[in-house]
Amino acid sequence: MPAMHEIGAAEAARRIRSGALSPSNLLAACLRRIDAVESAVGAWARLDRDAAARVAVQRDIEAREGRFMGPLHGVPIALKDIFDAAGVPTAGGAPAWAVRTPTTDADSVARLRGAGAVPMGKLATTPFAYFDPSATRNPWNPEHTPGGSSSGPAAAVAARMVPLALGSQTIGSILRPAAYCGVVGFKPTHGRISANGVMRLAESLDHVGIFARTVEDCALALSLLAGRAEGDRGARAAGAEDYVAAIADAAAPRIGVLASLMAQATPGMGKHLEAVIQTLESAGARLVEVTLPPSFPVLAEAGTTVLRAEAAAAHAGLYARHGGEYPPRIKELIEAGHRVAATEYLAAQAARHAARADLDAVAGRYDALLAPTIGAPAPRGLTATGDPSFCAPFSFAGLPTLALPTTVDGSGLPLSAQLIGRAWGECRVLAAAAWCERAIAFDAAPPL
Amino acid sequence: MPAMHEIGAAEAARRIRSGALSPSNLLAACLRRIDAVESAVGAWARLDRDAAARVAVQRDIEAREGRFMGPLHGVPIALKDIFDAAGVPTAGGAPAWAVRTPTTDADSVARLRGAGAVPMGKLATTPFAYFDPSATRNPWNPEHTPGGSSSGPAAAVAARMVPLALGSQTIGSILRPAAYCGVVGFKPTHGRISANGVMRLAESLDHVGIFARTVEDCALALSLLAGRAEGDRGARAAGAEDYVAAIADAAAPRIGVLASLMAQATPGMGKHLEAVIQTLESAGARLVEVTLPPSFPVLAEAGTTVLRAEAAAAHAGLYARHGGEYPPRIKELIEAGHRVAATEYLAAQAARHAARADLDAVAGRYDALLAPTIGAPAPRGLTATGDPSFCAPFSFAGLPTLALPTTVDGSGLPLSAQLIGRAWGECRVLAAAAWCERAIAFDAAPPL
Repeated sequence: MPAMHEIGAAEAARRIRSGALSPSNLLAACLRRIDAVESAVGAWARLDRDAAARVAVQRDIEAREGRFMGPLHGVPIALKDIFDAAGVPTAGGAPAWAVRTPTTDADSVARLRGAGAVPMGKLATTPFAYFDPSATRNPWNPEHTPGGSSSGPAAAVAARMVPLALGSQTIGSILRPAAYCGVVGFKPTHGRISANGVMRLAESLDHVGIFARTVEDCALALSLLAGRAEGDRGARAAGAEDYVAAIADAAAPRIGVLASLMAQATPGMGKHLEAVIQTLESAGARLVEVTLPPSFPVLAEAGTTVLRAEAAAAHAGLYARHGGEYPPRIKELIEAGHRVAATEYLAAQAARHAARADLDAVAGRYDALLAPTIGAPAPRGLTATGDPSFCAPFSFAGLPTLALPTTVDGSGLPLSAQLIGRAWGECRVLAAAAWCERAIAFDAAPPL
Repeated sequence: MPAMHEIGAAEAARRIRSGALSPSNLLAACLRRIDAVESAVGAWARLDRDAAARVAVQRDIEAREGRFMGPLHGVPIALKDIFDAAGVPTAGGAPAWAVRTPTTDADSVARLRGAGAVPMGKLATTPFAYFDPSATRNPWNPEHTPGGSSSGPAAAVAARMVPLALGSQTIGSILRPAAYCGVVGFKPTHGRISANGVMRLAESLDHVGIFARTVEDCALALSLLAGRAEGDRGARAAGAEDYVAAIADAAAPRIGVLASLMAQATPGMGKHLEAVIQTLESAGARLVEVTLPPSFPVLAEAGTTVLRAEAAAAHAGLYARHGGEYPPRIKELIEAGHRVAATEYLAAQAARHAARADLDAVAGRYDALLAPTIGAPAPRGLTATGDPSFCAPFSFAGLPTLALPTTVDGSGLPLSAQLIGRAWGECRVLAAAAWCERAIAFDAAPPL
């Protein structure tokens, strides 16, 4: 039986509802775990012990009275520090001049809070959710990067400090750190979850997503998070579907293998993913080689133009006052964005949408596409956050993607497979992921 | 009893359904009218007599057998020549190098065709739907402009050559010519009607809309045209509502009068609209003065930046090959668009969306807002298309607007009132317009 801090979100919610577990005890177990391992990891930007304890006690009382706020009643969560939580500073991993204290929750935070979750605080992010690293270390090996920009969420969930965290991905900021840290990272379709109250990097490309240790936890969280919010231009009118039901009895999936991307990973990663494919086939899945559409390379190119321009626009006010103090990588991005012409930006958006449609048509023919999440395990060193190039095209296409941990390699670092669904096809790709998760049966934890 | 070519679309559809009128006879009446007046007006870019006759005969046969394709069975329609109709060249009022022959209908054209309408051909447009004039004349006085860019639709519907026409508005291209020509011009919320298959000027601002001689005809057409189409990024998921039922028994509306805009019209127009207000009040409407939000001027400024950049992007390919041959006004627009930075464009979009929300909140407090459609009647001369400044802010806000003819002034030219609704509030603004139409009881026709 796992220790209390190792229990996933859905399982914790079930135990709380059955009376077998109290929110305060669960929170206390997570806090003890943080006390034990945080100094080695550095996942937290701000831990709100007292506020979390007060909320947990309230959830205790309600649970004892048989009243449950929602599906996450009493379950601890944490937020990448670009998500607004009312009354708590949003620092964005940035210098003090960028910090502001919002008066309202981000839509996503309000939804989880309303479902009974117990927010524990803010997790580390790279500055402004870009490539300048944070101080967080990889729980599997402190000499290696946890990835970025959602370094804190990936490391905290991997280190069993919290079962569920909110993160964001514009290029590769959920799936890459999830892969480097051996957890499940899930980025739904662009616009599926409202990004209101989340610090912007590039509006057309910013996705809100989920870190957890199981696919089920991702499905549960999405069922609470999905749906349009007033005033969010990206979010879609379509409401939530029943993602939890969708994964409950998933059939053996039909998976399209993106062989050309497999070939771009290191030989070790390529060989490992071949073994994963064997495992899935042995378990009954059908895997077929799939060719990417000719427009696929356009995604990275056009997405980069959109990213630059929109980042420059999002930072315009702050950059005018503090340009000289920006960290170097995002400074370079913003400077490049200021050189993009509107016509160039609009042509890139049109090209991106056309390439997205091409890729979506391919994705729609399978339950999921399979590709590497990362070309190699987390690189050594804390001065860079690793290579997002296996994630970026799918971010720029806005398709739902999920990083599934597959094994721990000879050097003690986790590996990962990326599953890609068609736009708005979260039920189908989550079902495929849940099936693959059972077949692969990854259950390693970092040696902390 | 009106002559056959004077019957509106809904009334014609009713007579065809009852057996009192045949599609071929109605088409023949419209063609005779065209033979009589087109040389004085110049509304048509391309009249497809034989194709229309073949379709009408087919609708005759079906009607005799009691089979009706839809609510426009046998009703003639015509298209501004920026709408694609399969197999017919789309010229866009432009030089020969811009002409292309599409293989499929625009979404809007397919919908009207599918509802039984009989397409008669293409109507004049200013080149590329911008400010360089077409050769069309105002049916009320051939020395005066019919307005633009939907010069042909406004003139043809006014001159009783066709009861219903599709047009488009990016700045003031439906309501202004409708006002100059004494017909009803209706532009629903941006995205309410798919713009797939319509020549683009500026994607964020292009609206598909309707020319007719009654509000009922606009409601009927919208009930067929509304709803999302696959691949149209602007169009909304929301389907059609019952616009025809909405106007059937409209109660006396509550109308917000935009006094600051009334003050910007010529004294004659201002005085006339005061009389219109008196008429509406006497008939039982409640009219109250409304102040525009402080952000209102931002709409024109930000919209112009968006217009320039998006027009330059939409024309990029053609302009690279034929820039030297472009008409002067659109050439100037495109050149200005090439000088817009992406950050400037994105800031303008953000400002426009914020100002739209402010204006929408005001509009939502009334059944309709009332403003001048035009500052003065159609100006003399055919070298310019008149002033769109009373329409432009509402185009740039994407709100539904309707031009209602109110009277013919001492010089023999029509005047008009503009009704503005809140976003996606077509039922409410159409009901208000139908009520006002009855109270005003405009029934003049051009002296042709």
